[in-house]
Amino acid sequence: MIKHKTLVAIFIALCMGSMGFAQKGTVLEDFKPSEVNQPGKLYPQVNSERRVRTSILAPQATNVQLDIGGVKYDLVKDEKGVWTGESAPQDEGFHYYQLNIDGASVPDPGTNYFYGAGRWGSGIEIPAADQEFYALKDVPHGLVSENIYFSKITNSYRRCFVYTPAGYEKYAKTRYPVLYLQHGSFEDETGWPTQGKANLILDNLIAAQKAVPMIIVIDNGYAYKPQSGEPGARPVSVFEEVLINEIIPMIDTKFRTIADREHRAIAGLSMGANQTMRIIMNNLDKFASYGGFSGTSNYPSSDEIDPATFLDGKFNDGAALNKQIKVFWLGLGTKEPNPFPGSVGAFRKMLEKQGIKYVYYESEATAHEWLTWRRSLHQYAQLLFK
Amino acid sequence: MIKHKTLVAIFIALCMGSMGFAQKGTVLEDFKPSEVNQPGKLYPQVNSERRVRTSILAPQATNVQLDIGGVKYDLVKDEKGVWTGESAPQDEGFHYYQLNIDGASVPDPGTNYFYGAGRWGSGIEIPAADQEFYALKDVPHGLVSENIYFSKITNSYRRCFVYTPAGYEKYAKTRYPVLYLQHGSFEDETGWPTQGKANLILDNLIAAQKAVPMIIVIDNGYAYKPQSGEPGARPVSVFEEVLINEIIPMIDTKFRTIADREHRAIAGLSMGANQTMRIIMNNLDKFASYGGFSGTSNYPSSDEIDPATFLDGKFNDGAALNKQIKVFWLGLGTKEPNPFPGSVGAFRKMLEKQGIKYVYYESEATAHEWLTWRRSLHQYAQLLFK
Repeated sequence: MIKHKTLVAIFIALCMGSMGFAQKGTVLEDFKPSEVNQPGKLYPQVNSERRVRTSILAPQATNVQLDIGGVKYDLVKDEKGVWTGESAPQDEGFHYYQLNIDGASVPDPGTNYFYGAGRWGSGIEIPAADQEFYALKDVPHGLVSENIYFSKITNSYRRCFVYTPAGYEKYAKTRYPVLYLQHGSFEDETGWPTQGKANLILDNLIAAQKAVPMIIVIDNGYAYKPQSGEPGARPVSVFEEVLINEIIPMIDTKFRTIADREHRAIAGLSMGANQTMRIIMNNLDKFASYGGFSGTSNYPSSDEIDPATFLDGKFNDGAALNKQIKVFWLGLGTKEPNPFPGSVGAFRKMLEKQGIKYVYYESEATAHEWLTWRRSLHQYAQLLFK
Repeated sequence: MIKHKTLVAIFIALCMGSMGFAQKGTVLEDFKPSEVNQPGKLYPQVNSERRVRTSILAPQATNVQLDIGGVKYDLVKDEKGVWTGESAPQDEGFHYYQLNIDGASVPDPGTNYFYGAGRWGSGIEIPAADQEFYALKDVPHGLVSENIYFSKITNSYRRCFVYTPAGYEKYAKTRYPVLYLQHGSFEDETGWPTQGKANLILDNLIAAQKAVPMIIVIDNGYAYKPQSGEPGARPVSVFEEVLINEIIPMIDTKFRTIADREHRAIAGLSMGANQTMRIIMNNLDKFASYGGFSGTSNYPSSDEIDPATFLDGKFNDGAALNKQIKVFWLGLGTKEPNPFPGSVGAFRKMLEKQGIKYVYYESEATAHEWLTWRRSLHQYAQLLFK
């Protein structure tokens, strides 16, 4: 009987504990500071359910919200004027977010800042099961160089970041192949070397001998002629012209590149996938490999593509393209929103109809976000220059 | 008479205009967007009186302030919920600032972000009369490389930025002298290459043949042994050990340096001036030139210095130091607050008493801020390695 009573007591205690837990909204209390917080900052935090909790002192405020992934979560004020609250579980990987304080949209003062969504703002990193491939490890590290240049075409100063692999300084006679890697819309050249972790991904791949040591050039995809068109007219992008006539010659002069098409690849994400597909198809004498991460040049259409007219018929002769293009690579997250699945799907159908060889990769359980693109770079880079 | 009446009318009109002006609070309406704003952002702005005006939508807020230089300025709400207001005139140069929204201290979403005051936050650039020396110009530009390394001493990943002058890649057999350049307290290795404009200052000096092409290494002055001391004890800095035993050997291996004391200089601002003075005096076999920008190792004391005991008597033999040290350089802003003038003043008296040759520079009308340090670097770099 004693045993039975003890068991009942334990059972009741467990139920009460569980009920107390449920009353808290079933939020697991194993939060840890986000790995992209500013030095010494305790918030925001992430728990094992992938919820984001943040906290900010705002004693006179009447309404404070965490705004992440287009959803707003109300924070709750305590007696000291500190507002705290958490989001629903998020996808693994990196997300942009902001706070709303009495109607003002501002960065969370706890995080490092990242350029995306057309602004410098807060970011959060939800640890991913496969995060080792982009982790900072004790392997030889390449350098990421900020390279400022004047563009005559745009009549402006521009900037690219250049990754040179570990050993570039030591092996002073070695020449390297080059990957040109582009960001998406409302992002800039800081995306790939920061939240994209392109340098760490390549450091790890090269150290494991899974990728060939290569230079990566990361420029800004927004480039316009000065005062082009009529007042108020949408400016015409000249990024292709800047890349072909200014950036590539500068890189081939300044860095020890192997300056031929076989040793030059191009890739981009979203808007950058669209741009770089046009660029390679217009310049097959310059590039031999293409990577499209969450994008293709038929965006935003999901309609059937007519290869006779699409991109001026550039995909019409599949057999010729198979000889010219060494790697044609497409990647997409399984949770990407419309129109990406339809648009990339229509493009793949066209490739298949034309008999064009390509690699297709799906990033499991990620949307139109950076974990999709980190994984895409990780896969794509392993196939290049081999 | 007509002439006289006309003059009176003009006089009255002028007075009224002036009075209307005074009613507006005498703020000159020639504001322009700050040059360190995020792309496309109209606010904050700066006028020719060097006032800062900012503007933010915060419809439910009851109190919004601009907090700059330790002074808070109330913003005023319009019918659309947009808060706008301006500061008193500021010193020329770069200042950190923040917004206060109903008691929450947050970055202004209009600006780029800078690390200082122990946080990533907003900055404003007040155009300076002498800004040409740090302007981005169409001269050959060096590269600023992000260099990640693992420190065994601290058991952590660390990072330095390395400036290599224009031509470093082209003249692949040339070796270069090196300046080690340090930030101040509550700042980090991003300060000198961002708000410090070290790369642009050197690009311009080298292009004008006013400075010798040199490498600049910018590391983080905070370095501690893992779990050093008792719990709660103040950690002991091991930056000197990291610099001498890890950073310098790494730089001399990775980059084409001239690896001797005659071709190695060290300088720092504020806390960095204090740190680097100790480092050079402990390591005169490693460095031959020193620059102290707004700081010395007797900080915060303004007391008379006894050279027999100060830094273990390292300044006791002035004649020997004059032979060993090629450039001993001190700089200070004329508007620096206590204890800097007294502390640097006491140090200079000691140098003079010991007959130690040094260069002293005053930055006109600047405080303990980045324009003092940009000017200091500009002056100091011209004297090095000659």
